[in-house]
Amino acid sequence: MLEALIPREKMFFDLFVQAGGKIVEACAVFERFLGDMEHAEAHARRIKTIEHEADEITHRTVDLLHKTFVTPLDRDDIHRLISRLDDVLDLIDAAASRIALYEIRTALPEAHEFARVLSSAAQHLQKLLAGLANAKKAREEVLRTCIEVNRLENEGDTILRGALAKLFREEQDLRLVMKWKEIFEDLETATDRCEDVANIVEGIVIELA
Amino acid sequence: MLEALIPREKMFFDLFVQAGGKIVEACAVFERFLGDMEHAEAHARRIKTIEHEADEITHRTVDLLHKTFVTPLDRDDIHRLISRLDDVLDLIDAAASRIALYEIRTALPEAHEFARVLSSAAQHLQKLLAGLANAKKAREEVLRTCIEVNRLENEGDTILRGALAKLFREEQDLRLVMKWKEIFEDLETATDRCEDVANIVEGIVIELA
Amino acid sequence: MLEALIPREKMFFDLFVQAGGKIVEACAVFERFLGDMEHAEAHARRIKTIEHEADEITHRTVDLLHKTFVTPLDRDDIHRLISRLDDVLDLIDAAASRIALYEIRTALPEAHEFARVLSSAAQHLQKLLAGLANAKKAREEVLRTCIEVNRLENEGDTILRGALAKLFREEQDLRLVMKWKEIFEDLETATDRCEDVANIVEGIVIELA
Repeated sequence: MLEALIPREKMFFDLFVQAGGKIVEACAVFERFLGDMEHAEAHARRIKTIEHEADEITHRTVDLLHKTFVTPLDRDDIHRLISRLDDVLDLIDAAASRIALYEIRTALPEAHEFARVLSSAAQHLQKLLAGLANAKKAREEVLRTCIEVNRLENEGDTILRGALAKLFREEQDLRLVMKWKEIFEDLETATDRCEDVANIVEGIVIELA
Repeated sequence: MLEALIPREKMFFDLFVQAGGKIVEACAVFERFLGDMEHAEAHARRIKTIEHEADEITHRTVDLLHKTFVTPLDRDDIHRLISRLDDVLDLIDAAASRIALYEIRTALPEAHEFARVLSSAAQHLQKLLAGLANAKKAREEVLRTCIEVNRLENEGDTILRGALAKLFREEQDLRLVMKWKEIFEDLETATDRCEDVANIVEGIVIELA
Repeated sequence: MLEALIPREKMFFDLFVQAGGKIVEACAVFERFLGDMEHAEAHARRIKTIEHEADEITHRTVDLLHKTFVTPLDRDDIHRLISRLDDVLDLIDAAASRIALYEIRTALPEAHEFARVLSSAAQHLQKLLAGLANAKKAREEVLRTCIEVNRLENEGDTILRGALAKLFREEQDLRLVMKWKEIFEDLETATDRCEDVANIVEGIVIELA
């Protein structure tokens, strides 16, 4: 009932902010997870729940998109934005599941670094998404935030390559090398998808200017 | 000569159904392959042949697209649809080639599970593609079929993670772990591309409604 | 000052040719790199520098795109074209960095094969990009060049699978198998992105016809 009274424009922007909020939440749990590896299963389950909640937001956004004739942003941009946000959470969930499933007992320092990079990227994305509703005003700040997310993605690349080189050099258990390689690749791809989100927002803001 | 008399609209829908048919065919061969590993080479070659036939269908579709002024569906949707169908078969072919090339002698139970999931997804895709020609009528059924393909993609995810966890835990030969990891990743990506196809069809059907 | 006098149309085509030139340059360094592995660090640094220069070209193209109201090609095509060109160089850089970082001492024959395939693809791309400015005239040659790039991509696939099968069969050091696997996958993905570039150009040329 009430929903019908909220302008559709606002509904889209609200959904983006909700999706961003789920990523921030998952990143916070992931940081706690790495500091409390004895309860891996429980933390992984918690992230899975958040991922399901985010799926729900994605479905509602796509539904709204199909039901809305005039959208506040280009239809393709809305679709790509919500899909990439969905990807970020899928990848954090994949990394978390793997840590639990592969029965890894100790978090490598590079995993902590990735968690910090992703948390920071998530907070920047959240700012970008919150700024979309009045993108014209916030232009300069949006562009600065995008640059910061790109920087974090580069940091993710560097962490990944350094972590793999170190594992190849130092870790005796090749099975563990393979397990961490997969986890780090998930986390690095998550930072790639964060950058995609930032680039989409950047494009939107520049077009509006 | 005759081709000129068939309306172009129908030609596109026919090509989609032909492309879907090739995927169904390749999945059937792949299931037989896993139950008859002594003839790995021959089965892999058979799938490669089907893949070439599917390539031909893709090229004809893209050609037709470039030659047609008014298309029955959005040009981008046609292009994405035929490309994703092409990807599905490429990945099944990649998995099959690897099994032969890596001289794997026994099919793991999870490979059989993947073959079943892919066969089922392929049959659902085929129904979706056949339904495109009168998508307005078939709306409800199309949407139900899409949900089913999404479910199969989730099943693919679960099989992959479970299979890897088991390989890391139980398989002594690390080389074999690496080989199967690649094969399972190809198969899981194939289910991802099936889901992409279903999502594209879903989008088309909802827009038409 | 001067820049204002150059028609924007020409500026886009110039940027594409510059981006293609950076790929040709990086491929040439990569070929020298593999023949002179003692100076791996220096060669990898040189490729990183070229990659930064290419990044700069990408940024200038995207900026120009946002500032230009009427573009000589479809906006999306310009964006996809420059992004895929950027990807090619990122992947060559990733492969080169890994060779240095993983302290690999000897280049496998398949690495040389990949370097040759990529150099050849890069030169073909350069021809395609140079031809874009008068695509109508060059139609036949453009289409023939695209077919050649597609052939090179298939060759990349074959090299990758063959190289992995050989590594699994012959290489005793599993760590080295894992390292080369990553490097070969980067190189194969680079040929995929070359094919994407060719396909985008092909689409543009056919539409213009």
